[in-house]
Amino acid sequence: MVVYFNDEFKLLSEVILSPFDRGFLFADGVYESIRTYNKKLFTYEEHLKRLKRSLKEIRIGFDDLNTLENIIYELIQKNNIKDEALIYLQITRGKAFPRTHSFPKEKAKPTLFISVKEFKEDSDEQSRGVKVILQEDIRWLRCDIKSTSLLPVVLANQKATEEGAEEAILVRDGLITEGTHTNFFAVRDETVFTAPSSRLILNGITREIVLGFCKKFKIDFREEFINKDDLKNFSEFFITSTTKEITPVTTIDYWTINDGEPGKITKSLQSVFKKITEDY
Amino acid sequence: MVVYFNDEFKLLSEVILSPFDRGFLFADGVYESIRTYNKKLFTYEEHLKRLKRSLKEIRIGFDDLNTLENIIYELIQKNNIKDEALIYLQITRGKAFPRTHSFPKEKAKPTLFISVKEFKEDSDEQSRGVKVILQEDIRWLRCDIKSTSLLPVVLANQKATEEGAEEAILVRDGLITEGTHTNFFAVRDETVFTAPSSRLILNGITREIVLGFCKKFKIDFREEFINKDDLKNFSEFFITSTTKEITPVTTIDYWTINDGEPGKITKSLQSVFKKITEDY
Repeated sequence: MVVYFNDEFKLLSEVILSPFDRGFLFADGVYESIRTYNKKLFTYEEHLKRLKRSLKEIRIGFDDLNTLENIIYELIQKNNIKDEALIYLQITRGKAFPRTHSFPKEKAKPTLFISVKEFKEDSDEQSRGVKVILQEDIRWLRCDIKSTSLLPVVLANQKATEEGAEEAILVRDGLITEGTHTNFFAVRDETVFTAPSSRLILNGITREIVLGFCKKFKIDFREEFINKDDLKNFSEFFITSTTKEITPVTTIDYWTINDGEPGKITKSLQSVFKKITEDY
Repeated sequence: MVVYFNDEFKLLSEVILSPFDRGFLFADGVYESIRTYNKKLFTYEEHLKRLKRSLKEIRIGFDDLNTLENIIYELIQKNNIKDEALIYLQITRGKAFPRTHSFPKEKAKPTLFISVKEFKEDSDEQSRGVKVILQEDIRWLRCDIKSTSLLPVVLANQKATEEGAEEAILVRDGLITEGTHTNFFAVRDETVFTAPSSRLILNGITREIVLGFCKKFKIDFREEFINKDDLKNFSEFFITSTTKEITPVTTIDYWTINDGEPGKITKSLQSVFKKITEDY
């Protein structure tokens, strides 16, 4: 497996990541996951823009962002990926000694790590829908930054896995924020609801695409938090992300929604999404 | 520099840490900082107990904890540390591919990293006291786990550094929780106050020692949250940690307390602490 590490393409086994990298010691870094359709990076500009924002918010100066796109395509080629690819890209504040909580006194060179793998979305999940569970949202209060401080997400997602669910939907003070790595949507009276873009959620790129569809096709939508006690008043649910696209939610905890049948609006949004990715 | 990595003593430059280590990707790990007095590990049992608890809470199974003490002493020796040492120890859920939020399907071997360095506490800070600033506590809701999900701490501590302060004291919903890497104490009418041991603070080992002193020497104390608006009603303040021991706080934001003179109870607690560490 070839990865890109700092300024070089390398075999994964030849990468020298220091235990004094601040990504390892402090989760002092940010990341993006990007995918291809028809072998082209999808919504690359949006991912790059979000990456820049994350870097700015945690004040990592990284200059070479414009070269990333070419590096990613070259990396896909070097790994001989025949079909579609999923790209993982992480930037940390770099290696610094001694360990200090504050930024290194002598400016460190940020660490850049990119890996790619073959990717195929789970079309079965997308047609049949998935189960999710509700979990308390115990994350930090800057979930709008796509940082690697992900331990709470790991623990919530593991709980979902153990309960046979695909995702954990997080609830803070009674209000639904989002999934561990998806945004959450609910539909009531043909109006689509999702949590507002704020410091409590990551504004997903697929989330923005879905809201764009709503505008374009005149589907009413509201960016409002949903109270978990109010869930039963909604008739369909779905989650969105780069890897899950638009995936229907058919079970929440022990509640099977609409006999497990994905909702009408969910399916129509899926078909529009399918069309743009097929034509991409 | 010699470090201990997994089952071996190694030169730092020879350590092969994978970018797929979950410590790097997800902050999926925990740590401890331990120090020596008179070349003996101080309160080692308490640190080990807390490490075990952190591991248990995030469900990392690590069996070889009993050998750590000898490894640490050997590492101090191998690094030729002549005086006192500060030990950093981190355990992550290990390396796993592919990247999944939930625990790896095939059980990974946890990664163990230990480094040591020469250490001398800042006696000037301890006699003159330090400035701290107040910052919003945006951390996750399991601060009782000593995890490496430390990005909020990095950002708050950096702000302190930039304002010429030694520490940022964190405030959640108006209540003071603790410092970024210290516990916070305040004294009023000869009663010592500190935030209660809960999910909102890390129960520091020096914190417990100080509360033990209070019991032993019949100093009244209360484990209660202090409202930040109530700070001016207190007459002295100090912070505690493994590296800062008991350090007086003489300035909070723009408020210089008691003409910058460390408080009476603070100084008496310091002298008791000094005695036990000298005799250790």
